[in-house]
Amino acid sequence: MPNPVKDAWKQGRAVVNGWLSIPSAFSAEMMAKGGFDSLTVDMQHGVQDYLSTVACFQGIQAQPVVPMVRVPWNEPGIIGKVLDAGAMGVICPMVNTAAEAQALVSACRYPPHGARSFGPIRAAIYGQAGSYFATANEDIAVIAMIETKQALDNLEAILDVPGLDGIYVGPSDLGLSLGMVPKLDRDEPEILAIYDRLLKETAKRGQVAGIHNGTPEYARKMVDMGFKLVTMANDSALVAMGAMRDVAIMRG
Amino acid sequence: MPNPVKDAWKQGRAVVNGWLSIPSAFSAEMMAKGGFDSLTVDMQHGVQDYLSTVACFQGIQAQPVVPMVRVPWNEPGIIGKVLDAGAMGVICPMVNTAAEAQALVSACRYPPHGARSFGPIRAAIYGQAGSYFATANEDIAVIAMIETKQALDNLEAILDVPGLDGIYVGPSDLGLSLGMVPKLDRDEPEILAIYDRLLKETAKRGQVAGIHNGTPEYARKMVDMGFKLVTMANDSALVAMGAMRDVAIMRG
Amino acid sequence: MPNPVKDAWKQGRAVVNGWLSIPSAFSAEMMAKGGFDSLTVDMQHGVQDYLSTVACFQGIQAQPVVPMVRVPWNEPGIIGKVLDAGAMGVICPMVNTAAEAQALVSACRYPPHGARSFGPIRAAIYGQAGSYFATANEDIAVIAMIETKQALDNLEAILDVPGLDGIYVGPSDLGLSLGMVPKLDRDEPEILAIYDRLLKETAKRGQVAGIHNGTPEYARKMVDMGFKLVTMANDSALVAMGAMRDVAIMRG
Amino acid sequence: MPNPVKDAWKQGRAVVNGWLSIPSAFSAEMMAKGGFDSLTVDMQHGVQDYLSTVACFQGIQAQPVVPMVRVPWNEPGIIGKVLDAGAMGVICPMVNTAAEAQALVSACRYPPHGARSFGPIRAAIYGQAGSYFATANEDIAVIAMIETKQALDNLEAILDVPGLDGIYVGPSDLGLSLGMVPKLDRDEPEILAIYDRLLKETAKRGQVAGIHNGTPEYARKMVDMGFKLVTMANDSALVAMGAMRDVAIMRG
Amino acid sequence: MPNPVKDAWKQGRAVVNGWLSIPSAFSAEMMAKGGFDSLTVDMQHGVQDYLSTVACFQGIQAQPVVPMVRVPWNEPGIIGKVLDAGAMGVICPMVNTAAEAQALVSACRYPPHGARSFGPIRAAIYGQAGSYFATANEDIAVIAMIETKQALDNLEAILDVPGLDGIYVGPSDLGLSLGMVPKLDRDEPEILAIYDRLLKETAKRGQVAGIHNGTPEYARKMVDMGFKLVTMANDSALVAMGAMRDVAIMRG
Amino acid sequence: MPNPVKDAWKQGRAVVNGWLSIPSAFSAEMMAKGGFDSLTVDMQHGVQDYLSTVACFQGIQAQPVVPMVRVPWNEPGIIGKVLDAGAMGVICPMVNTAAEAQALVSACRYPPHGARSFGPIRAAIYGQAGSYFATANEDIAVIAMIETKQALDNLEAILDVPGLDGIYVGPSDLGLSLGMVPKLDRDEPEILAIYDRLLKETAKRGQVAGIHNGTPEYARKMVDMGFKLVTMANDSALVAMGAMRDVAIMRG
Repeated sequence: MPNPVKDAWKQGRAVVNGWLSIPSAFSAEMMAKGGFDSLTVDMQHGVQDYLSTVACFQGIQAQPVVPMVRVPWNEPGIIGKVLDAGAMGVICPMVNTAAEAQALVSACRYPPHGARSFGPIRAAIYGQAGSYFATANEDIAVIAMIETKQALDNLEAILDVPGLDGIYVGPSDLGLSLGMVPKLDRDEPEILAIYDRLLKETAKRGQVAGIHNGTPEYARKMVDMGFKLVTMANDSALVAMGAMRDVAIMRG
Repeated sequence: MPNPVKDAWKQGRAVVNGWLSIPSAFSAEMMAKGGFDSLTVDMQHGVQDYLSTVACFQGIQAQPVVPMVRVPWNEPGIIGKVLDAGAMGVICPMVNTAAEAQALVSACRYPPHGARSFGPIRAAIYGQAGSYFATANEDIAVIAMIETKQALDNLEAILDVPGLDGIYVGPSDLGLSLGMVPKLDRDEPEILAIYDRLLKETAKRGQVAGIHNGTPEYARKMVDMGFKLVTMANDSALVAMGAMRDVAIMRG
Repeated sequence: MPNPVKDAWKQGRAVVNGWLSIPSAFSAEMMAKGGFDSLTVDMQHGVQDYLSTVACFQGIQAQPVVPMVRVPWNEPGIIGKVLDAGAMGVICPMVNTAAEAQALVSACRYPPHGARSFGPIRAAIYGQAGSYFATANEDIAVIAMIETKQALDNLEAILDVPGLDGIYVGPSDLGLSLGMVPKLDRDEPEILAIYDRLLKETAKRGQVAGIHNGTPEYARKMVDMGFKLVTMANDSALVAMGAMRDVAIMRG
Repeated sequence: MPNPVKDAWKQGRAVVNGWLSIPSAFSAEMMAKGGFDSLTVDMQHGVQDYLSTVACFQGIQAQPVVPMVRVPWNEPGIIGKVLDAGAMGVICPMVNTAAEAQALVSACRYPPHGARSFGPIRAAIYGQAGSYFATANEDIAVIAMIETKQALDNLEAILDVPGLDGIYVGPSDLGLSLGMVPKLDRDEPEILAIYDRLLKETAKRGQVAGIHNGTPEYARKMVDMGFKLVTMANDSALVAMGAMRDVAIMRG
Repeated sequence: MPNPVKDAWKQGRAVVNGWLSIPSAFSAEMMAKGGFDSLTVDMQHGVQDYLSTVACFQGIQAQPVVPMVRVPWNEPGIIGKVLDAGAMGVICPMVNTAAEAQALVSACRYPPHGARSFGPIRAAIYGQAGSYFATANEDIAVIAMIETKQALDNLEAILDVPGLDGIYVGPSDLGLSLGMVPKLDRDEPEILAIYDRLLKETAKRGQVAGIHNGTPEYARKMVDMGFKLVTMANDSALVAMGAMRDVAIMRG
Repeated sequence: MPNPVKDAWKQGRAVVNGWLSIPSAFSAEMMAKGGFDSLTVDMQHGVQDYLSTVACFQGIQAQPVVPMVRVPWNEPGIIGKVLDAGAMGVICPMVNTAAEAQALVSACRYPPHGARSFGPIRAAIYGQAGSYFATANEDIAVIAMIETKQALDNLEAILDVPGLDGIYVGPSDLGLSLGMVPKLDRDEPEILAIYDRLLKETAKRGQVAGIHNGTPEYARKMVDMGFKLVTMANDSALVAMGAMRDVAIMRG
């Protein structure tokens, strides 16, 4: 029950995160053997829904890896369902205002810190849900994605929402919102300046900043820069790009 | 309907084959974009069954890649089902005698060349099954796995079975059967001598020899040696080993 | 098509309800043989989604048991889908204001009593949807969960919303909202006083009150108290607690 | 990537659309062989969810038919998911105000024309998403359902929303909203007058009007009237009504 | 529990049978509303496996239609599974010898009439399996497909196997085996002579003869000829051919 | 990798086994929290197939419980698949002769002790399959069901097959074969005498005897009698009988 992701953050360590886009518990099992600190089911852009998320959680549960979810939208129904299914972290896309951040926190925390409904069906052993309840508000990581100009405009207000553990950068959408092409692993100076600001503002409040990356090399640079939650390209990319690479070798 | 795999063989070209072990049409789609000549659903050791095979076939059908299956066993029920589902090639494990090879061919060919039952539900458009029927016996590749000492003892008799298009080497089982450890990409001289014999005997009969490989580099060597159907490590290995590699880079 | 649950209420009888949390039509079939008046698929805290709900409905349809759903949230898309799938009752979580109750009713009733969209794909035989339409507004039970302090503050306004058939108590969330621990089968006097108020206010308006329970013994007490829709612990609890009990006996 | 549906509209041709209600890739494959210009997965009233939609898209992808979706509701999370899955058209139910139309367009278009989040996981080949991005805003058809009195009252304002490609009539709901029985293939003069108005107002703005039909004969009349997107009864109706018809013949 | 199919045969009535090839409980439900006496899941050529068969059985169980299965092969494991799932009839392909017919009967009947293993998990209510057991051997219809020259050569010996209820003609395979093209609804005189012989030999033994047909009109002729189990084209054909027909009408 | 079930037997302890009939990873998870030593997926009479078996294994893998399978039949294809999926024990129905026992062992053991094919896709981490190989032949429990008169006649020969770890009694089928009604928890003296013989003959050879039971109380008696693998009624029975019991209490 204690959340190793939040423990890592308390100790100042960066969390190495993998991304699950393939709706298969078996594929998730293969990822879980990779040595990640956490694995996040991508219900937004991945080919995932609620039951495939549960299956992926079952696939990874024998390994010491923390299950998290990027929810498809900031909607309390699905946030409650993935938490009941055992998610120890929620990454929410497109949090652009303090009100949206507040709604996210409220959906993730039990009263009096929020309005989450009680029924942790996979997260707790039936009849022993009390111990889950005792620490869930503390243990679950709540992360808002900062990926639009509007979110940057509202940054301080968003970060000031009590109960928010940190933020997560979506580089493609952030670029798009600023009039650039969508891509990962960006190096535009104005983007890097934004990253600096995000790191500074989150650090100031004891929060973490995370970022989505396309390559492990770039992810490593982001860790050096101060990001505490770094994700690399996902399982489906490992298949697609691995297949292309191997075929190229075979064909000479 | 004409089978590009058999066309390649007629022209003396090697077929670059991928292996589908993840029971997901989406994962199969990612593989299908890799540029393979054919993709084989592994119903024997892969996490696949009949309906996941159908799903994988649906996932890859928009790409110019030939769907094949390694069946779980030499059993006419499942062989008929995967052919009806559209498989253009069948790789059958553990064919150790001429009688077993004959049973395999019989399950894959319509009368008078075999005893396959008619009902190509996905393989043909309803009401136009006649055109499928006209060429199916010619188009479908029937491949027997040679992977035991017994099969080597019976090699000539197996290869002499009419209607067999070729053989496929399972290096792990072949080694095991000969008292060695199970592994791919073998270099024991006695194994390489067996490969030479298989290539020579199949070539003599206008058949092909294929082989399962662990790396594209080794697969390439096998093509140079004369193998006409070479498979690399599969989708689940791309996920598992890609994850390990990327995590290692990220952790430095 | 007439709804035996609403018939029971008209006759003053309590409805014995089971709870489906396991996403399996087969498990639902086993529950359906138990003798319940109704079975409710729990899409909020259960491991259920839309298609598993449809499967559960298919599993129970040979038995004389009324299919109902607890929806994951007060959202018209999913409410419409479960009704089209044949739900004869909708239990909606976290109805805290009259506006929310009005939205719930609107999603469940065809015009002019609401804004439900027409397309009862499983609920009616194609081409005979007219007879379903004729009585659906009357037959479907619409139930709002009362489980927060805010809902209690707004109780009369909520109950005054036309078209609401009754309410349903979530004891865990209700307790949480009032600063207590989450649990079922409560005996705190202030909680029991709330139950009295709910029973009185609903009775006054010809509505019913229902409640979620952890044991059949407590459920029976609630029937005696006046509740007309009583649920016991669900299928997954039967498995989990039955397994623990039987293992304890076997191990002595 | 170019969208043949929008090409047809540019050339003034009507699009013949099929409707997928059965959650089966195989059933969708059978429909895809029928010769439709487009096939729309009905996530609102059909027995479909997100993953069954993906499966249906995989089932039809080998045929030259455009994949579209009727979403269950005007909600950005699911709209983004079906577009990422490769939908080239979105039909949204119950668009009753300009604000709702604006929300629909925003969910379907990337900045600066909307707020769609970037991650076209099935819609683009990984690593080549740039070419998808370049034309997606232009290629994707965004269609609002006009099916209530309120929508008619707001028609001009709805149609004036930039980025809306057209509208789609739901005759059952439209009738219901106007106090009539729900049915398709309507012939009430006041309904036909509404159709005239819809055709005129959309034509004036270079938009298209579409309509849902119960029979191909009526659909044809609608094409003659000017509708550019016509749907007939769906796959499940083909099964249900075909079964009744054939049994009647057999029983004499 | 009594089997209406066998009742019909006792009364000399023909059974109108539908064919389920689409692996969807919903599609099966649509078929079940068609008025068939029985519905047979085609596990041989249909896109069906064991769990989709169970789902189809659940889909049809609310209608008065008898569930049957065409098994993929004459293999006791799968025959036992579909019977335990509730099949009241088994149609077995490619029964070519008396020994094969004997194996089929043995797999379908409990001792002392066969070797079926006891565990009717869906076929009986747990704890009340005794009543199922009491009549299962009598109630279940065991049907051998006669579809090869070899089967015709062995016809009398096959029919003489005790416990066989009847036979079923596969016209495509029968034709193929005799050197003709595979098709349904045949009119070759030598085929019709075979049908006569089958009807005569089965009638002589109090058994029934059934046949697979492509159109209800031909099926009706077969009933007039004396066949007591007639099947028309299946659900997937209703979709495929219905789609083609409707598109043709729409396109004029 | 070491198998706690075989460790228990080495230490003379009885293994408390649960039975998984519901094809749901979530239901399996609930069972896994019950405290069993092992859980066996029943692919013979349970509503299970290969992929649901894999899902159940994923569901239970976080608990210290040994995954086993009762295979549907003594067929090498499916036996190999469940072992590759991670089964640490195989219970095979209807082993009636020494040849059948030999075939079972051969399918479960790698050469030179059998003919199992190598590819432990879930059972081993890719690239580290060597450690699995090193001990698999030793670790996997191979159990033959003794449940017919024929098996009793051949008992000594069956038990003498090298590599067989033990036997498992199916009381229903055993009774049926002997002319009695099928039921569990039998008390006929001739049956108990058979149990004595089985216990004596297995003990003599260092093998174990197991038995299927209907209640934990009877299972406990069997442990006292000497059985080392005792199973109680399964998950579906917990649901069905728990539902009946709770409804009875609620209805008074």
